[in-house]
Amino acid sequence: MGDNSFGTLFSFTSFGESHGPGIGCIVDGVPPRVPLSEEILQPYLDRRKPGQSRFVTQRREDDQVEILSGIFEGMTTGTPVAMLIRNKDQRSKDYSEISRQFRPGHADFTYQQKYGIRDYRGGGRSSARETAVRVAAGAIADQVLKAALGGAYRIRGGVVQIGPHQIDRSRLDWDETENNPFFCPDPVTAAEWESYLDEVRKTGSSAGAILEIVADGIPAGLGQPIYGKLDSDLAAAMMTINAVKGVEIGGGFALSALDGREAGDEMRAGANGPEFVSNNNGGVLGGISTGQQLVVRVAIKPTSSILTPRRSVDVDGKDVDVVTKGRHDPCVGIRGMPVAEAMMAVTILDALMRHRAQCGLLDS
Amino acid sequence: MGDNSFGTLFSFTSFGESHGPGIGCIVDGVPPRVPLSEEILQPYLDRRKPGQSRFVTQRREDDQVEILSGIFEGMTTGTPVAMLIRNKDQRSKDYSEISRQFRPGHADFTYQQKYGIRDYRGGGRSSARETAVRVAAGAIADQVLKAALGGAYRIRGGVVQIGPHQIDRSRLDWDETENNPFFCPDPVTAAEWESYLDEVRKTGSSAGAILEIVADGIPAGLGQPIYGKLDSDLAAAMMTINAVKGVEIGGGFALSALDGREAGDEMRAGANGPEFVSNNNGGVLGGISTGQQLVVRVAIKPTSSILTPRRSVDVDGKDVDVVTKGRHDPCVGIRGMPVAEAMMAVTILDALMRHRAQCGLLDS
Amino acid sequence: MGDNSFGTLFSFTSFGESHGPGIGCIVDGVPPRVPLSEEILQPYLDRRKPGQSRFVTQRREDDQVEILSGIFEGMTTGTPVAMLIRNKDQRSKDYSEISRQFRPGHADFTYQQKYGIRDYRGGGRSSARETAVRVAAGAIADQVLKAALGGAYRIRGGVVQIGPHQIDRSRLDWDETENNPFFCPDPVTAAEWESYLDEVRKTGSSAGAILEIVADGIPAGLGQPIYGKLDSDLAAAMMTINAVKGVEIGGGFALSALDGREAGDEMRAGANGPEFVSNNNGGVLGGISTGQQLVVRVAIKPTSSILTPRRSVDVDGKDVDVVTKGRHDPCVGIRGMPVAEAMMAVTILDALMRHRAQCGLLDS
Amino acid sequence: MGDNSFGTLFSFTSFGESHGPGIGCIVDGVPPRVPLSEEILQPYLDRRKPGQSRFVTQRREDDQVEILSGIFEGMTTGTPVAMLIRNKDQRSKDYSEISRQFRPGHADFTYQQKYGIRDYRGGGRSSARETAVRVAAGAIADQVLKAALGGAYRIRGGVVQIGPHQIDRSRLDWDETENNPFFCPDPVTAAEWESYLDEVRKTGSSAGAILEIVADGIPAGLGQPIYGKLDSDLAAAMMTINAVKGVEIGGGFALSALDGREAGDEMRAGANGPEFVSNNNGGVLGGISTGQQLVVRVAIKPTSSILTPRRSVDVDGKDVDVVTKGRHDPCVGIRGMPVAEAMMAVTILDALMRHRAQCGLLDS
Repeated sequence: MGDNSFGTLFSFTSFGESHGPGIGCIVDGVPPRVPLSEEILQPYLDRRKPGQSRFVTQRREDDQVEILSGIFEGMTTGTPVAMLIRNKDQRSKDYSEISRQFRPGHADFTYQQKYGIRDYRGGGRSSARETAVRVAAGAIADQVLKAALGGAYRIRGGVVQIGPHQIDRSRLDWDETENNPFFCPDPVTAAEWESYLDEVRKTGSSAGAILEIVADGIPAGLGQPIYGKLDSDLAAAMMTINAVKGVEIGGGFALSALDGREAGDEMRAGANGPEFVSNNNGGVLGGISTGQQLVVRVAIKPTSSILTPRRSVDVDGKDVDVVTKGRHDPCVGIRGMPVAEAMMAVTILDALMRHRAQCGLLDS
Repeated sequence: MGDNSFGTLFSFTSFGESHGPGIGCIVDGVPPRVPLSEEILQPYLDRRKPGQSRFVTQRREDDQVEILSGIFEGMTTGTPVAMLIRNKDQRSKDYSEISRQFRPGHADFTYQQKYGIRDYRGGGRSSARETAVRVAAGAIADQVLKAALGGAYRIRGGVVQIGPHQIDRSRLDWDETENNPFFCPDPVTAAEWESYLDEVRKTGSSAGAILEIVADGIPAGLGQPIYGKLDSDLAAAMMTINAVKGVEIGGGFALSALDGREAGDEMRAGANGPEFVSNNNGGVLGGISTGQQLVVRVAIKPTSSILTPRRSVDVDGKDVDVVTKGRHDPCVGIRGMPVAEAMMAVTILDALMRHRAQCGLLDS
Repeated sequence: MGDNSFGTLFSFTSFGESHGPGIGCIVDGVPPRVPLSEEILQPYLDRRKPGQSRFVTQRREDDQVEILSGIFEGMTTGTPVAMLIRNKDQRSKDYSEISRQFRPGHADFTYQQKYGIRDYRGGGRSSARETAVRVAAGAIADQVLKAALGGAYRIRGGVVQIGPHQIDRSRLDWDETENNPFFCPDPVTAAEWESYLDEVRKTGSSAGAILEIVADGIPAGLGQPIYGKLDSDLAAAMMTINAVKGVEIGGGFALSALDGREAGDEMRAGANGPEFVSNNNGGVLGGISTGQQLVVRVAIKPTSSILTPRRSVDVDGKDVDVVTKGRHDPCVGIRGMPVAEAMMAVTILDALMRHRAQCGLLDS
Repeated sequence: MGDNSFGTLFSFTSFGESHGPGIGCIVDGVPPRVPLSEEILQPYLDRRKPGQSRFVTQRREDDQVEILSGIFEGMTTGTPVAMLIRNKDQRSKDYSEISRQFRPGHADFTYQQKYGIRDYRGGGRSSARETAVRVAAGAIADQVLKAALGGAYRIRGGVVQIGPHQIDRSRLDWDETENNPFFCPDPVTAAEWESYLDEVRKTGSSAGAILEIVADGIPAGLGQPIYGKLDSDLAAAMMTINAVKGVEIGGGFALSALDGREAGDEMRAGANGPEFVSNNNGGVLGGISTGQQLVVRVAIKPTSSILTPRRSVDVDGKDVDVVTKGRHDPCVGIRGMPVAEAMMAVTILDALMRHRAQCGLLDS
């Protein structure tokens, strides 16, 4: 599998740099006869696109997606769907400084070490700009999952912590994520973040975040032990997103400190079959979905590009002080949220297809 | 890639159930002309084998590995190395109860939902017994890495938290992990865990743990962006280990709360090239190794098999109370440590081979 | 995917050398709840095992297969099925000569060039002995295909040419393949081959062969364009078999010389849907099965190990004359036939699972 | 691996339909620091583009390739290279007939059976138009191989048979392939084909062909036994090309009829190491390159789209007579030649990278 491909049966392969002609991807393994068009995809992309509030980058990209293949008369044909987003706002500027300096916390240094060459304009391939095409691929997965799983299926997510400030879980309401610029499921905390992030911007700093993505209506049985476990695939998916430094399922790290008598989720007979009393395991046992809500949390580090001068070296190995001007997200976690939702959709659909291929073969 | 295979260029495929004839794996992509024998592998397996203290399962398995192929006159030949460990202590017992009940927190329920059939003896395929073969595969990776990277290379790990009790980082000494039954790098905390775990056992409960695995001597440049990032592959690797619910790289979740002016690791000119001032990123930037120490932490939930009765349902969907007798680890995190080391070795070797294949092609 | 793995969803990974402890494989992606046992597998292996006539090698191996995992109470569980065949008749002999000489037409030279080391005993990994495990994997595929496709499904094959002597197609009767030691579907030609091969053996030479494998009851729609086409996967499968130098589908090379007005298979309305008037395309159009009989032909070169002295070089690069004593098949094509059947079964099942995963997702 | 991807370490993923917005591919695993530009790629594409003689389709496409990513300042960066070719001459026409009829010998029927929907315009995804992007990917592979292997490396190919008319091997001269519209390495036969193909066109028929592709300067040791053998990968590669029905390596099918005393290629000590006396095995032994010339032959069936009426059925299953008007190649084998060269380049580079990754690891 190519390094720039994600997924096995339902997969996508991405390309593109921040300041090149454009970005895009090829989505393969798309089931045929699913309604699809640029109109259906665009709203997904609009959620992630830059410039929508003062808390995200001011780069101007309308992120209009062009479908190049795989659709006929408004339906998928089963052949690969290629999508292209032209870059528009590659602000012409002087790159002489950035071409010679390694920004602390950035991939500048490691790309140079690995490849011996790098497209330094806007971070090149390591830029979060690439994540737009994941949202496009995730949108297709979401459409297919809706067709396959029906109305109970839904993926939602939000930012549950910015800097040291967590939401109050007693107020958690996923519908609230559409009502503030932070995808925050708690309106009171959202208001607090507003002043906190204004302060962060003023001081020339940045903030980290924790995302939580949940999926409902996922049938029991998805995940392919031992090395294609659903939680392993989800962790891999999330860890590919820029600036992510941690992933946990259900109770996650907190579960390590719990007493064994409280940790395992008990079950009781329910009206429609067995029901779980709790969900410490986040909907996954033994790498296989339980039928409960899937719960994934993702840790995102503070944006590395900040106005405050930081110590670094240049390409000649000499000490320099780096100030990163430009139009950067004060908290990359915010725009990372729709990306995490998209990666979850792709991972779940891939798991569904793999499960049906093996365990559904003799049912059909 | 088969569901029971891990890795791309250096890979292994595992098989076996807890109470079947045996467990084993085939390791593929092994570089030729590396010294290898059962004597070299056995010490790795001995670190993980059961029955070594009262804090792990009392099942008696000497975990003697038989090499079936791929070695000639004490050297690897480049052909696949198959290894077999016969099961010995599959205690004959009455399975009538376990065959009908779903143990809370276990994969019993999900395996039944997925496959419509399950080998319920000792947990079958979902048993941690399978992890012995990962240690064998990791041992081969470790031998190859030593040959490829030389003396600076070393993978080490320890348990840094059991239940709510963390080590004191001011006392961290990796050499101490060999001096106590917990792989604890802090001797004072190790002593405290001893009484804590005795209490846990007495109450019929169990405890979770957090592992930390570090690798030194790893060159800069490993990891294949965007979807073969080193941290993504490490997260996937760790998440496949039984009972793991979270993974973080470097500062991990704590990094989300840090101020952006502290988070990014600064650099200075050093005697032998650029040096990092800190390692919040755990040796990975943009999915590529920096040349610093690689740092991974893994959250493990409390053992689900406990003596305390727990509510569940049986295969007919009726309410039952489940008491799990048998020989279970009060804290599976302890024996999970060598497994995590092994998965790290396999992941790093695979990354090294992929990196050389692409970026070293024109150097050779 | 490891180099020693074949297949994507239904796959197997093989190991073992001619004169090592044993050979075997792990079959992954096996659908659950299919009846399986060593008794079911053994008859498949018996068709390929050595020593059954004077026209095959006299090495004595009963090829008893031991199932190590993946079966519970006589049924597959969906977990990997590992199988082991211990080597028995590794005749102790003097290897000093073969360890230093490259037999013409053999892989001795290329293995040495590639790996810088080789297990020269009996050809090591390059020996046709490895093909026994393919037959075991193919047997599982065959059992699953029977369960999935029902009674119309059947894979059959035969040897249709030995040396320059072809069968007479007017006498072709697949049932005859069980009545002679050559898997020959034409009894008259079989009798002629008997005296021909006796002559070949007497002169210290060997003979090549052409195999034909056909599959009935394969539904239309299998094959995953563009790079997972059914005929491409079949060609790859056949080309991995020892001594194979050519593969063709349907009319194959002869089709190149045909007039365009005769080549394309016409269709007519039939009682149960469209029917093809001819089958020049061997049941594949655009890489997808048509629903007709699948027809594959495979060219096998004469056995390279012969008693007649041949010119070669030794490991020091010096000229030598090589005489290959030992117990070799005068025509490897004969025992290659069950191997080709097995590879076809694995390929078809894999294609079926991939097809259902993508195109059947919204039907279930 | 996605169905529309080819290769493992060096790989490409293609998209596009005959009459959609365009075709293209993403090439992944490209080694960094190789000179690359649209100017370098275009001459490869020009060899395959339509309309260059009366013996190929008259569709007008200039096949201008646009590089969308992966290049910086004229060099590859190691990130994926995406390429786009816009379709230009999608002649607007009436599709009512073709949308309802299955052309004999075409993939119309099987695409409909598989997907339940098809883009019937110009054959959609099954059109040979897709092969243009393979030539682009192959051009990149060729550039990398030149950089890696130096001046001795070269891939060349030609058409060696059209209809029943073979070249005279005593006149074989690869340089001649550039001097006639057939890529024919024998000028006398080329002249004969001219009149033959004019006759074929006049009668409303078409002709098949046999291609031969050879590679020089390929080091010994490439190919990854047992299931990544070089000849198996080459066979798979060639079989994915439209209208290909057979593949053979070296002597191929003719080798089956040879006496064992002539078949194996003998060796002698040479000035620069061992030399082979003959090349019946086409440069591959045991699935590994010998260091000799690689020789692959490919059988291509006659174009299915012909003016002569043929019997078929329509989407309602009713009998129809089909006449395929339009601009079709009277012999698709001609334009298939550069495609086969491209697939060979990709396959060899991939094998080189896989070999170095495993067997070169401890050398570097």
